[in-house]
Amino acid sequence: MTLPPVRLGNISPAAAREVFRAGTAQPTSGLALGHTQANLIALPREYAYDMLLFAQRNPKPCPVLEVTEPGSWTSVLAPGADLRTDLPAYRVWRDGRLADSPREVRDVWRDDLVTFLIGCSFSFETLLLAAGVPLRHVEQSVNVPMYVTDRDCVPAGRLRGPLVVSMRPVPAEAVARAAAITALMPAVHGAPVHVGEPEALGIADLDKPDFGEPVTFHSGDVPMFWACGVTSQTAVMSAAPPFAITHEPGCMFITDARDTDYRVA
Amino acid sequence: MTLPPVRLGNISPAAAREVFRAGTAQPTSGLALGHTQANLIALPREYAYDMLLFAQRNPKPCPVLEVTEPGSWTSVLAPGADLRTDLPAYRVWRDGRLADSPREVRDVWRDDLVTFLIGCSFSFETLLLAAGVPLRHVEQSVNVPMYVTDRDCVPAGRLRGPLVVSMRPVPAEAVARAAAITALMPAVHGAPVHVGEPEALGIADLDKPDFGEPVTFHSGDVPMFWACGVTSQTAVMSAAPPFAITHEPGCMFITDARDTDYRVA
Repeated sequence: MTLPPVRLGNISPAAAREVFRAGTAQPTSGLALGHTQANLIALPREYAYDMLLFAQRNPKPCPVLEVTEPGSWTSVLAPGADLRTDLPAYRVWRDGRLADSPREVRDVWRDDLVTFLIGCSFSFETLLLAAGVPLRHVEQSVNVPMYVTDRDCVPAGRLRGPLVVSMRPVPAEAVARAAAITALMPAVHGAPVHVGEPEALGIADLDKPDFGEPVTFHSGDVPMFWACGVTSQTAVMSAAPPFAITHEPGCMFITDARDTDYRVA
Repeated sequence: MTLPPVRLGNISPAAAREVFRAGTAQPTSGLALGHTQANLIALPREYAYDMLLFAQRNPKPCPVLEVTEPGSWTSVLAPGADLRTDLPAYRVWRDGRLADSPREVRDVWRDDLVTFLIGCSFSFETLLLAAGVPLRHVEQSVNVPMYVTDRDCVPAGRLRGPLVVSMRPVPAEAVARAAAITALMPAVHGAPVHVGEPEALGIADLDKPDFGEPVTFHSGDVPMFWACGVTSQTAVMSAAPPFAITHEPGCMFITDARDTDYRVA
């Protein structure tokens, strides 16, 4: 569904959304650098309390940046944007199963849909790179590897499921710096949930991620694990709502907000 | 309703709750130092989404620490506690108006009540004092002064209302330190919303707070304003829910959590 990346350079968020609205589909990593990208989950109003409560109880994997009014397709984080068309690609879910992967969702939008925009680790990656922390998956041009752990999230209503984490190999001497930088960004997953010892999270083999792609370690790299936004999508689909819309993985909503807006100090 | 403070010294959270359960009513400021105290608002389930959404949209005045299941009177933040009896004093509201100020609420508890525990500035005050920032209202043994501002919160469903702030005079040389320390505690109101210039918040006279008591400035003190938990109570009561229970002002729920648990780094 998703086309290979083309160069959009240092495009503005509004211009990037315009490109996607016109039909281009590509991953958003590296676009509109410094501007906050968000996961999208649109759910019937009847499921919105469960989703918001799940996020409150599991703030590290599910940092909510915005919740819309039912039926609304506008965002306070990106005035002028249309949430139905301005992401590169979408997934439409029926009864918890993937039903379609369209480029826009105007034709299936519903008046009772409440949209959740959830923080994304791209935000802290920008600041890690700025601080000189190497990101192996970026160097190797692969998607960040993600793993289902053996830790359960705190359930909320019909939503329950395991914690999903993303993993980045970080040179041992940069681990403390990476932890400190991300700790200051609690709205975009915050500090790592775990450092080293994948087995302690129930991860048997780092070379076999559940989502994304494996990444090659350099000598002296330590695996660092951050809570991942995929957690909320997994929890929602386990509840099998009759209808839902999400973004296509890697094809995020690019907002006008800045990553630094989510740094606490 | 509230008795004058007696010395409970460096009592444990569980012991403090036991004293209140037995019928003693006194403000909780200074008790079980270092342990997190929380505002309590219990609302019918039908209002819970509006409350949680209001908190998501207004995180500085309404930092939610916990949301219970409907009807539950237990807290994960204080195993063994009973939310119906373990606060010093309560307020019972009917149709948005104060109806009673009892010592416990077992007899009026309802199966549909969802309880919100909301962060309290006592948590950051402990760390300000530890960092040598003087707190004039503590020195002068008065309640912290609070003011209704001319800034509107972001509405959510039936909840709307002005931002309410607490004010602390801080020596000019300690202002930056106080801002930095509280910025690292976003779960308990975070950084100040405003420093200096009360007029810019629509506050005409610092000597006439809307809640609490006036506090005397020392020469060189600057007024610092933090978002205040009273904001959420004001917003809830403006919606006039048929029934609600809150804590009596100053008589908080003392949890087993530590203030430092809510510091991000």
